[in-house]
Amino acid sequence: MTLRERDKKAIWHPYTQEKTAADNIVMVRGEGTYLYDETGTKYIDGTSSWWTNIHGHAHPYIAEKIAEQAKKLEQVIFSGFSHEPAIMLAERLLSILPGGYEKVFYSDNGSTAVEAAIKMSLQYWKNKGEERNKIICFRDAYHGDTFGAMSVSARGVFTDPYSRLLFDVVFIDTPDFSNEEEIKKQLRSAIRNNTSQIAAFIFEPLVLGSSGMKMYSAELLDDLIGICQEHKILTIADEVMTGFGRTGKMFATEYLTHATDIICLSKGITGGFMPFAATVVKGFIYDAFYDDEKSKMLFHGHSYTGNPLGCAAALASLDLFEREGTLNKIGDITKTHEAFAKRIKDNPTLRDVRQQGTILAIEFEVGQGGYLSSLRDKMYQFFIERRIMLRPLGNVLYILPPYCISGADLQAIYSAIEEFTAQKR
Amino acid sequence: MTLRERDKKAIWHPYTQEKTAADNIVMVRGEGTYLYDETGTKYIDGTSSWWTNIHGHAHPYIAEKIAEQAKKLEQVIFSGFSHEPAIMLAERLLSILPGGYEKVFYSDNGSTAVEAAIKMSLQYWKNKGEERNKIICFRDAYHGDTFGAMSVSARGVFTDPYSRLLFDVVFIDTPDFSNEEEIKKQLRSAIRNNTSQIAAFIFEPLVLGSSGMKMYSAELLDDLIGICQEHKILTIADEVMTGFGRTGKMFATEYLTHATDIICLSKGITGGFMPFAATVVKGFIYDAFYDDEKSKMLFHGHSYTGNPLGCAAALASLDLFEREGTLNKIGDITKTHEAFAKRIKDNPTLRDVRQQGTILAIEFEVGQGGYLSSLRDKMYQFFIERRIMLRPLGNVLYILPPYCISGADLQAIYSAIEEFTAQKR
Repeated sequence: MTLRERDKKAIWHPYTQEKTAADNIVMVRGEGTYLYDETGTKYIDGTSSWWTNIHGHAHPYIAEKIAEQAKKLEQVIFSGFSHEPAIMLAERLLSILPGGYEKVFYSDNGSTAVEAAIKMSLQYWKNKGEERNKIICFRDAYHGDTFGAMSVSARGVFTDPYSRLLFDVVFIDTPDFSNEEEIKKQLRSAIRNNTSQIAAFIFEPLVLGSSGMKMYSAELLDDLIGICQEHKILTIADEVMTGFGRTGKMFATEYLTHATDIICLSKGITGGFMPFAATVVKGFIYDAFYDDEKSKMLFHGHSYTGNPLGCAAALASLDLFEREGTLNKIGDITKTHEAFAKRIKDNPTLRDVRQQGTILAIEFEVGQGGYLSSLRDKMYQFFIERRIMLRPLGNVLYILPPYCISGADLQAIYSAIEEFTAQKR
Repeated sequence: MTLRERDKKAIWHPYTQEKTAADNIVMVRGEGTYLYDETGTKYIDGTSSWWTNIHGHAHPYIAEKIAEQAKKLEQVIFSGFSHEPAIMLAERLLSILPGGYEKVFYSDNGSTAVEAAIKMSLQYWKNKGEERNKIICFRDAYHGDTFGAMSVSARGVFTDPYSRLLFDVVFIDTPDFSNEEEIKKQLRSAIRNNTSQIAAFIFEPLVLGSSGMKMYSAELLDDLIGICQEHKILTIADEVMTGFGRTGKMFATEYLTHATDIICLSKGITGGFMPFAATVVKGFIYDAFYDDEKSKMLFHGHSYTGNPLGCAAALASLDLFEREGTLNKIGDITKTHEAFAKRIKDNPTLRDVRQQGTILAIEFEVGQGGYLSSLRDKMYQFFIERRIMLRPLGNVLYILPPYCISGADLQAIYSAIEEFTAQKR
């Protein structure tokens, strides 16, 4: 049997209707922007393997640091014990995050980083003597796939089969650049209608990823955070996708004046090598759990919390930001995207072209949005045939490349996109 | 500042009341059964660092395999794509699991393995045209810390601050060796009282871990599974702790005659090196999602699903089971535990001494159960002072060692336990 056949026989892939999907392509090697399949065919990884890879595939420096750590101390229980890479990483994250965060709580992936943030928010109020069980979120939010993370995400096709077991949240509309006053009004009225019941407001800063790279302004977000602060409602920035340079600055919340109370990090944190996450908080959140009463502790932890290999990878990734001038590369991608966006923005097949840093999103006029659209599958296949891995969200095609991508490879992706839009015309 | 001080300043540790807890001990190196702190002091890891480490710390073979993989292919999006280590691991897991499982779904930790299993169960029924939203579980169960996993776990101190947002489940009492008929009666009546609403029954096979290593018979579990099968209720074995040799056989479900429909694996799966998990299912479960209708797919996935480093570690760990005759070591630990259990079982300070394979649990007569008991802290400190890492669950002290532990180190732990019981007398 070929590897593809063996894959189909033994594995159930995530987010895949395996009956109608094409066979999974089996990759055997990665290098920089490229992945190579078992026949040696080279693909451009146009979305950084689910938005995780930032310095390029199999970067030798990160690989080496993981290897060193694995030989020395691979894992230690993180309750009652600690280790140097975890301490160094926490210090380093705190030093680069905007806004005076004080404590780092580790976990394994974006969903668990969000689950920890939700639990912190609820228990913060309980420890303060208030019962607050409601969370505000955007109608098109995506925060992960576990029940808590799904509950604070959009209701729709992703959540339908499990919706009866999700907890209730308070939705406000998703902002764009035209409805800012309306969104502020909705937030104010959501707070008014649920007096003393709102624990927190959770959001993807500047870009809502999975719902189609929907973008909104830092000014609006600053206002929304300001409104929450007036009412002492905790704010949670889910920077799982936006963190580590993706939006042009190291963190999307650097575009803000106000600081949030909690910030969730994952995906790019290890440079794209392995699962790892952090939920970082202001001192006053931690203080609400720091008590003589043992039951005020946070009841959350995973076996591999603070895993030394994940910490080593994350430290190495931060080293590379300095050694390789990664923020300059991000600036270059941003400018190159801008030029291309200008070139195609009047194309009649397109409804919208939008950009935030290294993320360029192109929304088609025709075809419905949503995960199940047929345009999506057509686009996906078109680019795979051209050896470019893109993964449209409904009628929204987007590029979210590793920061090491060359100008030539960016142009290759742009050309393929223009070829596709020409077909559509 | 010392590492301990820096740790306290920057990190929020899981399951820790940091105000009353002793300073976290900072480990710098691991080797076999031992961890070494920054002063060079050597500790015996008596509970395998949260039940994860099975072949010993920093095992060079697993470290080497991770290093090789990191240099070659560290990560690839697992939707639309696959890679050889994931395929080999799935085939290998299917070949060693009892009971004819057919498909492997990967995720990152025990909680997500359980969340995936719950979502599969609910959507299985929905895809079949039935709405079934209730799950049966044991009253003292522990299945993880995310909202879905918490919902199917015991209500109590762990879940109190978040309990208003947990979904309802159907609890039956926790079995022991004296109440088997009663448990079967409760399961039958739970099914009768919720006709056509029960999607699945989830359980920790043979040993309920976090609630205090509560043990029950394989015969009873077989009967319970049989009752579920009569009513076409799905069965989910959470082998996150019990898997990979812990209970004396490779999987706890090997003690059963009936096979479960879904099995959750994590912790020991990577030999204790890094977060990774799998939810493995029978073919008929997968078939209910395999459809021309795209919306029947499973809507679950994490960025690092099927991470190549995790797969490489897991394959290496399975190699070691063969190369190092690990099941023989497990047999030796089992026998050594048995002899010690016989020696202390009549000690008047003890209520119960119970064992399942490499897990030996000693329940004290005095002191309440539960996470917040003061006996727990006293015991914890007693053993740490003797350089033995044990982590009692309330009044239950247990040993759950790496399989490479020597007879001398086991005896050292036993002696310390006898010293403690002598003090208590």
